[in-house]
Amino acid sequence: MNISQKIETTAAVSEQDMANAIRFLAMDAVQKANSGHPGMPMGMADAVTVLFNRFIKIDPAKPDWPDRDRFVLSAGHGSMLLYAIHHLIGYTDMPMSELAAFRQMGSKTAGHPEYGHALGIETTTGPLGQGIATAVGMAIAEQMMAARFGGALANHFTYVVAGDGCLQEGISHEAIDLAGHLKLRKLIVMWDDNRISIDGDTDLSTSMNQIARFRAAGWDAQAVDGHDPQAVAKAIARARKSRKPSLIACRTRIGKGAASMEGSHKTHGAALGDKEIAATREKLGWSYPAFFIPSDIKAAWEDVAVRGRAARQTWEIRRETSRSRKRYEELVGREIGPELARRLAKFRAEHRGKATKVATRQASQMTLEVINDVTPLTIGGSADLTGSNLTMTAQTKPIAPGDFKGRYLHYGIREHGMGAAMNGIALHGGFIPYGGTFLVFSDYARGAIRLSALMGLPVVYVLTHDSIGLGEDGPTHQPVEHLAMLRATPNLNVFRPADIIETAECWELALTEASTPSALALSRQALPMLRQGESQDNLCARGAYVLRETKGPRDVTMLATGSEVEIAVAAADRLRADRGIEAAVVSMPCWEKFEAQDEAYRNRTLGNAPRIAIEAAGRLGWDRWMGPRGSFIGMQGFGASAPAGDLYRHFGITADHVVAEAQRLCGNSKGGRRQ
Amino acid sequence: MNISQKIETTAAVSEQDMANAIRFLAMDAVQKANSGHPGMPMGMADAVTVLFNRFIKIDPAKPDWPDRDRFVLSAGHGSMLLYAIHHLIGYTDMPMSELAAFRQMGSKTAGHPEYGHALGIETTTGPLGQGIATAVGMAIAEQMMAARFGGALANHFTYVVAGDGCLQEGISHEAIDLAGHLKLRKLIVMWDDNRISIDGDTDLSTSMNQIARFRAAGWDAQAVDGHDPQAVAKAIARARKSRKPSLIACRTRIGKGAASMEGSHKTHGAALGDKEIAATREKLGWSYPAFFIPSDIKAAWEDVAVRGRAARQTWEIRRETSRSRKRYEELVGREIGPELARRLAKFRAEHRGKATKVATRQASQMTLEVINDVTPLTIGGSADLTGSNLTMTAQTKPIAPGDFKGRYLHYGIREHGMGAAMNGIALHGGFIPYGGTFLVFSDYARGAIRLSALMGLPVVYVLTHDSIGLGEDGPTHQPVEHLAMLRATPNLNVFRPADIIETAECWELALTEASTPSALALSRQALPMLRQGESQDNLCARGAYVLRETKGPRDVTMLATGSEVEIAVAAADRLRADRGIEAAVVSMPCWEKFEAQDEAYRNRTLGNAPRIAIEAAGRLGWDRWMGPRGSFIGMQGFGASAPAGDLYRHFGITADHVVAEAQRLCGNSKGGRRQ
Repeated sequence: MNISQKIETTAAVSEQDMANAIRFLAMDAVQKANSGHPGMPMGMADAVTVLFNRFIKIDPAKPDWPDRDRFVLSAGHGSMLLYAIHHLIGYTDMPMSELAAFRQMGSKTAGHPEYGHALGIETTTGPLGQGIATAVGMAIAEQMMAARFGGALANHFTYVVAGDGCLQEGISHEAIDLAGHLKLRKLIVMWDDNRISIDGDTDLSTSMNQIARFRAAGWDAQAVDGHDPQAVAKAIARARKSRKPSLIACRTRIGKGAASMEGSHKTHGAALGDKEIAATREKLGWSYPAFFIPSDIKAAWEDVAVRGRAARQTWEIRRETSRSRKRYEELVGREIGPELARRLAKFRAEHRGKATKVATRQASQMTLEVINDVTPLTIGGSADLTGSNLTMTAQTKPIAPGDFKGRYLHYGIREHGMGAAMNGIALHGGFIPYGGTFLVFSDYARGAIRLSALMGLPVVYVLTHDSIGLGEDGPTHQPVEHLAMLRATPNLNVFRPADIIETAECWELALTEASTPSALALSRQALPMLRQGESQDNLCARGAYVLRETKGPRDVTMLATGSEVEIAVAAADRLRADRGIEAAVVSMPCWEKFEAQDEAYRNRTLGNAPRIAIEAAGRLGWDRWMGPRGSFIGMQGFGASAPAGDLYRHFGITADHVVAEAQRLCGNSKGGRRQ
Repeated sequence: MNISQKIETTAAVSEQDMANAIRFLAMDAVQKANSGHPGMPMGMADAVTVLFNRFIKIDPAKPDWPDRDRFVLSAGHGSMLLYAIHHLIGYTDMPMSELAAFRQMGSKTAGHPEYGHALGIETTTGPLGQGIATAVGMAIAEQMMAARFGGALANHFTYVVAGDGCLQEGISHEAIDLAGHLKLRKLIVMWDDNRISIDGDTDLSTSMNQIARFRAAGWDAQAVDGHDPQAVAKAIARARKSRKPSLIACRTRIGKGAASMEGSHKTHGAALGDKEIAATREKLGWSYPAFFIPSDIKAAWEDVAVRGRAARQTWEIRRETSRSRKRYEELVGREIGPELARRLAKFRAEHRGKATKVATRQASQMTLEVINDVTPLTIGGSADLTGSNLTMTAQTKPIAPGDFKGRYLHYGIREHGMGAAMNGIALHGGFIPYGGTFLVFSDYARGAIRLSALMGLPVVYVLTHDSIGLGEDGPTHQPVEHLAMLRATPNLNVFRPADIIETAECWELALTEASTPSALALSRQALPMLRQGESQDNLCARGAYVLRETKGPRDVTMLATGSEVEIAVAAADRLRADRGIEAAVVSMPCWEKFEAQDEAYRNRTLGNAPRIAIEAAGRLGWDRWMGPRGSFIGMQGFGASAPAGDLYRHFGITADHVVAEAQRLCGNSKGGRRQ
């Protein structure tokens, strides 16, 4: 397609008409739902119509065509903009009836665009700033695919529509800094510069010169009248030729076209009202009823799909004739193959034999050496803690500006941006991203972690330094509530392996998940190998299992995860040797997977004896497993700054304490009721 | 003090000597601990020496003097910089023995500066970016005090030392945008521009032009050689005269002075080694042993305290003669007085009488009308959701650039920045900040909320739209894991009131806490008044209480919070009327306060009957209260987009479901074991 020619549209139906179709669908749907956000779809209708009508490369008949352009509505509250367009260009699951069911139970048209909920939604948006930061990941993935397969197979743009909120959120800074650094030239952000936020004019809270800001970050930045189609088209054309990511500030009026409310923050988040909508129909000469689009306007919109189909078919011919086809499809299909399981079984057997004692963060790196050797899918990275997270392996050469052949991203000190970029890489396809930070700084990435889980993306968070065991850095760096926070998040597997064997098993499980992200909580400190027996089974797959069984009936059962399993085992050994108390030890590397087991397995594993839970974190959540007679040994408050061993002693997370508690419990359970 | 004269230092001891004192104390302490970060203290020693030697206004003898300058070490890993200075200028709790106990159990010299842990530490830092964002709050508070009391009582600077990490984190964007907008002219940030981060050179991950970036945000920005004292002094002097906040980019070499490692990222986070330190002593002509400072250099540093004492004493005379003294001291003392309790008791009685049915977010606003009328301490705000959070009252006129008389901050779409700014306002003193966002977006503010709790600051988070009850906005906006996340955080009171009476009680409790922050989870939807009886007691003070007792023995006990208490009450009524089952209802607005009650009260409240917990959130944590025979009715996964009533039915959080579950449990407990 020759862009410079395409800029002059010659269709009989004007882009004004096409944009008005969006406006009325948005107004009518929000009115019917009596809930939603008409202001943004109306304000950006003109600019987005130009983008779709003249540039965008998507095929509604093949919504998952890998080389399609990505369109990200970062200002997700304007979801009716997206749904209206998807209806107009002919996504099969977006008939008019869906628009009329906007925001109702069971409809495709959720309040905010939900990935997987309807065709063509590239990512879930709504939490502000996530879209633009996720798009950075998509644009990275596109460049990585292009570096591997060339422009014939990988050559698309990532377009973003962002609002003031997106650009005020901190995550936008992390995203644009990274994008500018990496020179993501095919990332184009259209900013809905309407100078309105919920509280009123944006000058209530910001004086930012966004053009200067983006230029400072290494972007091209242009400002246009967002209601001037020719100006918007020229800006997009220029942005597509730039060697840098591009911002196009589209000066707009929120609620553009509304009879009396245009420009008012009142159009942002509420229905306009029947009267205003009727007056707007009058003003814009739109004589059609609600939820009706005249056939010529519909046809004009469908031309977008026609152009997209042609592009897709041409691309398919290129793919079919490509010598890289097989390799390409393996990546896009995210197939790891059976080799990984074999290699990891061998890895585990080898280290069982050697009883390797390493920190689980180091065990993770050793496992990654195997994984990254077996598959080219994995893309590593860290938020500037590479040497601490141990996320880099021999196979993962860094990605650098202009060089996307590598497999490692220096995300910078940007946990939130890293999480969102990983979401974008996973959404784009072709890669499985993992990225590291300290467990405590999962706080900073919470917004993105939640979206990984909500979207069901195969993203792996490598969270090292997972307790007071990190030692001297003190309470600001010592997580105590973070395991609970992560475990509370639906559809997130939280793994806390106890030794090198469990670490390898948990990594294997993480990579097996197609629609559940994983968080690996890993120790800074060295941990002995605890696994006994020669079983090749991945015992972590059941979430919890009996690591040490008793000889006779259990007097007590100890539940522990990660670095505290060692303490439980030591206590169990001493209880048997010194007191004749039989203590089983249950390692619980993944509560979510244990929860998914049948009740019989869970009961068998937990047993009927009194239980002691041991975890160097807060208690919240443990009562589920401890039962009514149980005890918890862990953290009551924040940590402290001292060497790790001193801290464990100071907070009483020791085999001594476990032994004493077990004696107390056994006394009680045997009826003695000792105090 | 005449600054322009003071820029030329005339002391016999050179600033080079003074800076080297910092360098060696940092090297020696990190070496002894074999843990810590010498690179930054060495790199910034020259610039920070100039700041302290020529400008800063603090008095170690009165560390909490309200009008002192605030110094914030945002790059908190460089804690030895702070501890060294505090020793040198004579803080009484920082003798040399504390430096020698760096990072050891029980010492004052924690790995990162901990507020409250040693005198003169203005805020806890370490999580990057928090310091600069907290400093914004301090600078806001200073301007608010100045607007109320004039420059004679309130006139100080807030200085920040920030590293590359601080400026890469997203929170820095929120902070500098807000600071630039508000023209916080007395905020001065010295950036340690050493071009090194943990992974290596900063050009691995950023190409940001920080000078241009800060100017885009409305800041003055200067770049100087951070090892040229005269240049640094001139820049600080200029910054102090600016009408805008100021960035001073101090170009430095990390580990400056080190014999062979200067400029290397290896000096960042590990001891240099005895050999390197010995060579550095040689190179810098520092012939003193470890942990020894010659008296003339110590005396030069102590001059800082002499200057500070004089300034403080002059200020005290001004305060003593000020006609505003009483009002000033009330604010600084954070005294609300007994009037609030009386007014709120009246408020509760009035609404009990009227059985007012409102959303708890609205009840919160109505309560705030009383609170803000009684005390001038409270400073409201919202992250651009004023009309949704209902955080503004008649008394809270907005603060605007150049006008700090108001009591309301339009924080912008910046939850993280808001949280940190509130921390800064609370740390500064004079005010009690509260700020609103949606509960789900507490995610974005996690880093700051954790620091509120860790520092023990009286900050109130107003978190509305607290469940699927918000309706159509869908799963991105519907919290399910957030109550657990907040409850897991030590030293944070999480309140979820059920009606207007509980809302007023919870607000009163929040304002009573001197060293525990509060999170109020509030409904979007209207809730009936449920409280019965005429008691004036604040029943929420016990965290949980029996809202509805049974006539005879309990068959079942329902535990619920917030909007689900209504469901529990409805189910209890139906169980009694239709089935003859006696169900007690326990409202649990604050788990933390309930946990703090004695066991007898807890047992009495929870009772011995089977329990059903009802909360429109995830289960994690509830097993603690439900006990082994309990049931949980709530959310299993993420929410959906639909009207609130439809969602409650869809997810089975209904009186019908509770009734059915109660019947099942009662059957079981009576031995029937019905399935």
